[in-house]
Amino acid sequence: MSRVWNFSAGPAAIPTAVLERAQRELLDWNGSGASVMELSHRGKRFIGLAEQAEADLRELLKIPADYAVLFLQGGATQHFAQIPLNLAGEGDSADYIVNGHWGEKAASEAASYVRVNVAASSRNEQYLRLPPRASWQLDPRAAYVHYTPNETIHGVEYHDVPEVGEVPLVADMSSNILAEPLDVSRFGLIYAGAQKNIGPSGLVVMIIRRDLLQRAARPMAKIFRYAEHAANDSMLNTPNTWGWYLAGLTFQWLKEQGGLEAMAHRNRDKAGLLYQAIDGSGGYYRNPIDPAARSRMNVPFTLHDSALDADFLKESEAAGLLALKGHKALGGMRASLYNAVPLEAVQVLVQFMRDFAARHG
Amino acid sequence: MSRVWNFSAGPAAIPTAVLERAQRELLDWNGSGASVMELSHRGKRFIGLAEQAEADLRELLKIPADYAVLFLQGGATQHFAQIPLNLAGEGDSADYIVNGHWGEKAASEAASYVRVNVAASSRNEQYLRLPPRASWQLDPRAAYVHYTPNETIHGVEYHDVPEVGEVPLVADMSSNILAEPLDVSRFGLIYAGAQKNIGPSGLVVMIIRRDLLQRAARPMAKIFRYAEHAANDSMLNTPNTWGWYLAGLTFQWLKEQGGLEAMAHRNRDKAGLLYQAIDGSGGYYRNPIDPAARSRMNVPFTLHDSALDADFLKESEAAGLLALKGHKALGGMRASLYNAVPLEAVQVLVQFMRDFAARHG
Repeated sequence: MSRVWNFSAGPAAIPTAVLERAQRELLDWNGSGASVMELSHRGKRFIGLAEQAEADLRELLKIPADYAVLFLQGGATQHFAQIPLNLAGEGDSADYIVNGHWGEKAASEAASYVRVNVAASSRNEQYLRLPPRASWQLDPRAAYVHYTPNETIHGVEYHDVPEVGEVPLVADMSSNILAEPLDVSRFGLIYAGAQKNIGPSGLVVMIIRRDLLQRAARPMAKIFRYAEHAANDSMLNTPNTWGWYLAGLTFQWLKEQGGLEAMAHRNRDKAGLLYQAIDGSGGYYRNPIDPAARSRMNVPFTLHDSALDADFLKESEAAGLLALKGHKALGGMRASLYNAVPLEAVQVLVQFMRDFAARHG
Repeated sequence: MSRVWNFSAGPAAIPTAVLERAQRELLDWNGSGASVMELSHRGKRFIGLAEQAEADLRELLKIPADYAVLFLQGGATQHFAQIPLNLAGEGDSADYIVNGHWGEKAASEAASYVRVNVAASSRNEQYLRLPPRASWQLDPRAAYVHYTPNETIHGVEYHDVPEVGEVPLVADMSSNILAEPLDVSRFGLIYAGAQKNIGPSGLVVMIIRRDLLQRAARPMAKIFRYAEHAANDSMLNTPNTWGWYLAGLTFQWLKEQGGLEAMAHRNRDKAGLLYQAIDGSGGYYRNPIDPAARSRMNVPFTLHDSALDADFLKESEAAGLLALKGHKALGGMRASLYNAVPLEAVQVLVQFMRDFAARHG
């Protein structure tokens, strides 16, 4: 079968050009006579790759020099726990903004290591809108403020970076990193599981202001300390070398596409096209999210009659449209429109949705 | 360039047949129209793969039903810390056998979470021999006994499983898992970073007796609890799907090779050939390890004159022999002879060593 249009929420689409290159050099990378997976992470060849990937990411996001870039493991979920271990001392509190499933989980995992203050939550509104910045009850003595700019399951997204004063702002950007240009200097720490907008699963990319590396005071193993990872260029132990390699190829691909300005433009077009098709369907399709809070990356939608869901999924898959089934928390459908999903995929989806509505009117 | 003979200590050689298959299906796995990396770990297709990999590993190692198999992240190093968090309560002690670099590190990382009792150590003998079982000062109240059956850097290996009574035996088998048949029932917990004898880096395979999953009592985040990972079939969060896939292909390859009896035979032949070449070189090459403690997986050796090291490395690389440089802790050379390294590679290496000695007599 040929390649499908992949709307998976994660692990998600990877640019076809990146996969083709990885395929070509899978058995013999960079003239080494071995796969990139078979080489020591401490060898010159791999270190060159690792440094290039970091340099390309720094260029794409214009990361200031006083920020370290780390390539870690464990998924965002592990760092839900590791962030308080590193940024908060015993007895400290941290502010959490809970605007969807992942923010909720971040707060829950953190609670073993820090006093969690839920400074704002839209849970009582079923996460259909975002708690506006003005409603956040921030504590100026908090160790940090944690939020989830884009919620993968609920399909809500903050379109501006909130101002939180001197307290470091920590953002789980797993599902929207690299979707547009970003002012990294507004953040204390940014982290992202790679499997949505960067590459394969099993890799976490973290951008952390260097002064925060000095915070860890409580006793813990070295492997949990970001400062140790930074001091060892993310090679404190063997990193996920394949993930790092594919992330590097994706960063190069993003540069070839015109960088993050170009991606932002394309992502606006893609999301605009899909929301327009939903809103213009006369109620056949519906997205329940407050329009001001709609995500450009993850678009949940329902059919007017859920009895049609099974047909929609079956026929869309037959039409080469993969992974449109919504998360069980919301039901219905979801289309994830990460960087690697081309405009053409959304055009095909929108046409399919119109045809389906006509057939099953 | 064609494929080289790869003696890397890790990330290490992967069977060429496994890489070729991964290459063929990189853009379209199992008729999905997508890469295996682009599919949800919660989808039917990936779950089928995950279950098959576990079933094949269980078959290869004859893992009893009262053991759980986990596919985790973080490298063995993270589990140096996570094992005491899961197996020991506050104030408990654990016995550590330190017979090389990795056992030393395991004890050091554990010390933040458990009272470490070094029950035996060969450090004062530069790890050239193993502390015999009779010398271990075990504490019957220890939460567990931790040891490293094969030390990758120092090239020493226990050839029998030590008897430790009722206290659970915990083994870091990163560099010798699957090298031979194993009586899993002798162990409480076996773990291995994948990047030596299983697949790519970024994956840890763990085999844990189910009763030990109930031990974790201290407060910690869910993501650090093995019981949670076991209850969620290693999908508590997104696993390293690519690593899991390649591990599965490797397990299938091992079965095709005749299973672990066949690998044990082949590994004995490979190591025998290399040690014979070293011992029979009239002192030109030298392995300093007590013959009873020699590793079949990692063979460090020195040249009679270290001034020849640079030439040896340059000429061996030109001859298509990769990664023979020894670890900086020992200097000299090291050849790692994991499952994926064929007998032919060792034959070529041994011939090269003879020729080199003749040329540089």
